[in-house]
Order: sequence, then C-alpha cells, then structure tokens
Amino acid sequence: MKKFVNNVDNMLTESLSGFEKAHSDLVLLHLEPNYLTRKTKAENKVAVISGGGAGHEPLHAGFIGKGMLDAACPGQVFTSPTPDQMMAAAEAVDTGKGVLFIAKNYAGDVMNFEMAGEILSIKNATVLTSDDCAVINSTFTDGRRGVAGTVIVEKCVGSYAEAGADLATCKVLGDKINAQTASIGVAFTSCTVPAAGKPTFKISETEIEMGVGIHGEPGRKRETMREADAIIKDIVDAILTDLADKAKSAEVLLLVNGLGATPLMELYLIYNIAEKLLQEQGITIIRSLVGNYTTAIDMSGASITVCILDDEIKKHWDSPVHTAALRWGV
Amino acid sequence: MKKFVNNVDNMLTESLSGFEKAHSDLVLLHLEPNYLTRKTKAENKVAVISGGGAGHEPLHAGFIGKGMLDAACPGQVFTSPTPDQMMAAAEAVDTGKGVLFIAKNYAGDVMNFEMAGEILSIKNATVLTSDDCAVINSTFTDGRRGVAGTVIVEKCVGSYAEAGADLATCKVLGDKINAQTASIGVAFTSCTVPAAGKPTFKISETEIEMGVGIHGEPGRKRETMREADAIIKDIVDAILTDLADKAKSAEVLLLVNGLGATPLMELYLIYNIAEKLLQEQGITIIRSLVGNYTTAIDMSGASITVCILDDEIKKHWDSPVHTAALRWGV
Repeated sequence: MKKFVNNVDNMLTESLSGFEKAHSDLVLLHLEPNYLTRKTKAENKVAVISGGGAGHEPLHAGFIGKGMLDAACPGQVFTSPTPDQMMAAAEAVDTGKGVLFIAKNYAGDVMNFEMAGEILSIKNATVLTSDDCAVINSTFTDGRRGVAGTVIVEKCVGSYAEAGADLATCKVLGDKINAQTASIGVAFTSCTVPAAGKPTFKISETEIEMGVGIHGEPGRKRETMREADAIIKDIVDAILTDLADKAKSAEVLLLVNGLGATPLMELYLIYNIAEKLLQEQGITIIRSLVGNYTTAIDMSGASITVCILDDEIKKHWDSPVHTAALRWGV
Repeated sequence: MKKFVNNVDNMLTESLSGFEKAHSDLVLLHLEPNYLTRKTKAENKVAVISGGGAGHEPLHAGFIGKGMLDAACPGQVFTSPTPDQMMAAAEAVDTGKGVLFIAKNYAGDVMNFEMAGEILSIKNATVLTSDDCAVINSTFTDGRRGVAGTVIVEKCVGSYAEAGADLATCKVLGDKINAQTASIGVAFTSCTVPAAGKPTFKISETEIEMGVGIHGEPGRKRETMREADAIIKDIVDAILTDLADKAKSAEVLLLVNGLGATPLMELYLIYNIAEKLLQEQGITIIRSLVGNYTTAIDMSGASITVCILDDEIKKHWDSPVHTAALRWGV
C-alpha cells in the first residue's frame, strides 16, 4: 500500500487539519469529539448536519458552508461517527430552530445518529438516504445503501433551511428527494482501507463489480469487463427500472460520480453515453454534475445517479452555495 | 487495462461530447479541427487560448469561461494539438484585440503553437509555462516542463484579459507568474495511456518517482517509499531552493494537485504538511487550491505548486471566474 500517510492512526485528523487550513474562510475544525462547522455560525435557521465514515471525500465536510451544511461529523475511514460527535455538533450549530441530521443508510450510522437524536435536548429529525438501487441488504446495512444521491439531498435541504423552512418541512423535502433518486456504481478495482493496508476485495483484470457499494461492498454480480456503452447501458437500465413510472418523460439531474481513481476524461465519456440513453427514453437532463463527489477512497470506478426534478427541487439545487466542493452564485 | 472506453480512437471525442453536454451553459465543442470555445463569445478583449494533449483534465477545457479561457485545443492523449486547431480557435474567438496562447513547455506543443502563431493573420503572443523545477530537459521537452502552475497562469491572465488589458500586458503578467511559480510532483504508480494499454513505466510497491512529469516522464530519482512528512519535506525544500530569494517572507498561493488517483483525504494531509513547512520558513499562505486540476490520467501521486503572490496576481486570482472546474464570484 502506497499512500500519503505518516501514521494510519493520525491520518484522519491530519487530513482534517489540512482541510481546515485550506478552507479557513469557510470552516472550523473541532477535535475530541471531531466535527467541523461553518466558520461563521448561521442565525435563525434549521441547522443541517451530516456525517459518516471518512474515505468518501469531499462528502461530507466538503459541503459545509452557506446554502448547504452547518456541520459535518467525520468518523474514521469507513466507520460511523459516534453520538458524542453529532451531539457536540448539534449544540454548536443549533439556532433554536432545531437540527436536521442527514445520514446515509448504514447500520452503524443509523444507530449512532438515532442515539444522538434521542439523547439530544434540541429538537431534531433525520433524513436517511438510500439511493443505491443496486442491492437490498448488504454488508454494513439493511435496506438500500446511501451513496452519491446524498449530495443532492444535502444541497437542496441545505438551501431550504437557508431560506427559512422549518424542521419538518426540511425533512419532507429530504425524504422526497431520496425517494425519487436512484444510483448504481461499478468498480474496476477495490479500494484500500489505510488501516487494513490491502485491497478490500480481489478482482481480476477482466472483471468488474456491478453495483458495488462505496465501501467496496458486493454489488449485484461480478461481471466480465466490456465496453463502456454496454456497462453504462446496464446501469442506466437498472436505474430506470428502479425509478419506474417516476422517470417517464421526466426532467432530471444526472450525476456522474467518480469513486476516486477514475479520470475526468472517462467520467465525461460516461456522461455522454448516459445522456444519450436517457434521451432515448424521453427523459430530459436539465441539470448535471460530473466529478468526484462521493468517493470510495482510491477505487477505480464510477456511479451514476438520476434524480427526478420538480420546480421545488430545481430551485433548491440552483440556489447559491459556497462550500469547498460545490460553489455557485457567490 | 480497465477503462471506461468503447474504442480508443474515439475516446477523446466521446469524452469531449460529454463535456459539452454536461456544461452546455458554458462551452461549445467544434470538431475537425477539435477545439472548444465559450458558449457566448466575449467582446472587445484579448482572446486567451490554451491547449495541449488530453489526459490532464480538467486542464484545459475545464477552464473555459468568463474570467479565464476563451478557447482550448485538446490534442489526443499526451499528444500536442496541431496548428490547424489553434488557428481555427483563434479565428473563432478573436475580437480584434489579438490572441494570447498559453502553452506548456513541451517540444511538440511549442512547435505547433509557434507554427499557428506564425501563420495566423491575427496578432498573437504566447506564454510558455515551465513551472516544474524537478528537472531541466526531459522526455518530450528541452527546458523545464509546464505542469500545474499553468492553472494559475490561465486564471490570472484570463482575469487580466477580461478586465481589458492589451495583448502585450497580458503576456507580461503570464510570464511574470510563470517566473515566480515552482512545482514538483511525485508518483506512486504509473499512468496508463489508453492507446498503449499498459503502464508507461514500472514501479514497485516500495518505490516512488520523485519529480515525475505529468506524462510519466522520469523525475529526479527513483526513491524508497517513506512517510508523507519526509516526501513532502523533500518536495517543499526543492521548490524553495528553486524560488530562492523570491520566497523569502513571501505571501504565496499553495496548490496541492492530485495526479488522478490520489484521494482528496490524502491531498489535504499533504496540504497540512506543506503549510507547516512553509510557515516554518516564514512564508505565508494566503491563497490555496486543493484537488485534481492538472492530472496524469490515472496516476497515483500528487504535485505541489507554490506561486509567489503580489497585489496584482492576488487581484487576478480573486476575480470572478465561471468555468467547469473553477468557479467563484458568480
């Protein structure tokens, strides 16, 4: 394993320190318990907090800032943050309007966010994302996994909270977006968890893992490597099967997400294929995002996410955002 | 080789088509000869055009848009664009104020940009970037190579052109920035050129290539893998040796650039180390950029760039920019 690391045990805090320094206009890092907040605390709004294991950067800390998250709680690599992190973050960013947690649907995260929510004296609610339609039940979770669609939920709910929506209304929007968003990923290589020091799974030069999870969880099946057109067609077909009637003549946001080690040149080639396939089905892409937004450390591979838009979601997607990883309108 | 590709020969145009579709608000793709322009042609300003071999995305097409480039000319992977591309692009975006070409210092690029400039009836000038202080003379070029510092030149010169500076003045700024910018990269793995289908060079699990070029060119030497602190110290020391007196008590922009397959978590860890080392030398980082901006396809590794700032460069770095890969102020 060759990585930029001094000591695996300190890797997360050293990286978080670098993140804070590189974005000192945007974020503050708090240690023990670990959480990050906006540099300037927002006023008079629902506080939106996300979190999850590290290794998916820029998710979630990269989305802290005006128009998106108020705070993020990073766990160790591929490990849920603990309730004390969420509680400390909530106490730091609550403005009296309550806290909305956004967590990806993994057993550890669900348990720890739930526990924090129960102990917390601040009113709170949780949106669980579960956009990965590759498999139901998998390593680490019951039910569908939360993957790159989480970015869309965080962006739009963050916008709604910024605009003054109350806690219940923010949760309704988050749940709605999650219900009309579907993703599938494919891996060419495994990721390597630094503490493990070796690839999570073995895969040969002629195989791909279709439907892989962002922690290297098994997907639908191990398939034979083939041309991009065929791989992307299978992914888009599966997504449209999942979205079913909701996708009919829909206007959508298409997110092509790199899992860490796939070049932008290939991600745009994927976009080109997916766009054509969606168009052939009468679906119109009116918003897009291409890049590494929900990664699996150093995995070579990509995921596709389709989110069915309506005027409400579109408005909140388009609203100004100023974070390390997404920025427009400011 | 596992890549998202249908046919290696069409890979570039398929990717460029995807790029145009994903950023249809920003860019237009023109084929045969291949070049990309802003969607809306600018008026009454020096046109800034860059280009170079593909495989370094988002460089250069990702930097087309208001405040930065007017056009970009992509060659095939790691291959210079041809003069007809630069000429067609120049004719498309010239507003009567002339064209400034920005090219990285590689023999093929230099020859082809020079040829285009000579044949072109539009007045033009060229800024050659050569920020890589790892080696003098290398595969593909005489003199220093142009690497990630090119992004800073393109951003600031683009800003100056947008503000109405004339051709000669834009060139002076570009040359000045290049002269006070130094970069070095390090590779953990080789890149794989799609048409070659195999890694450009062999490197073992215990070795690193210090000073690697963005095409996988040899660096200063093959070294033993070691902890991040030691690797980054060697890089920062070499950069400061190169910048010499210019770096004394300087205010700088620190760019930590991923070469394609290195996770953001590690890039921020690198930033943390480099920031501390620079601070210890009395250097103040007042601007920063962390991410994949000048890549070497799928190479695992990173580069560090230090640009000495002054009020003029700082102003042009900070000015609004709206491109696919860099955006602020709009």
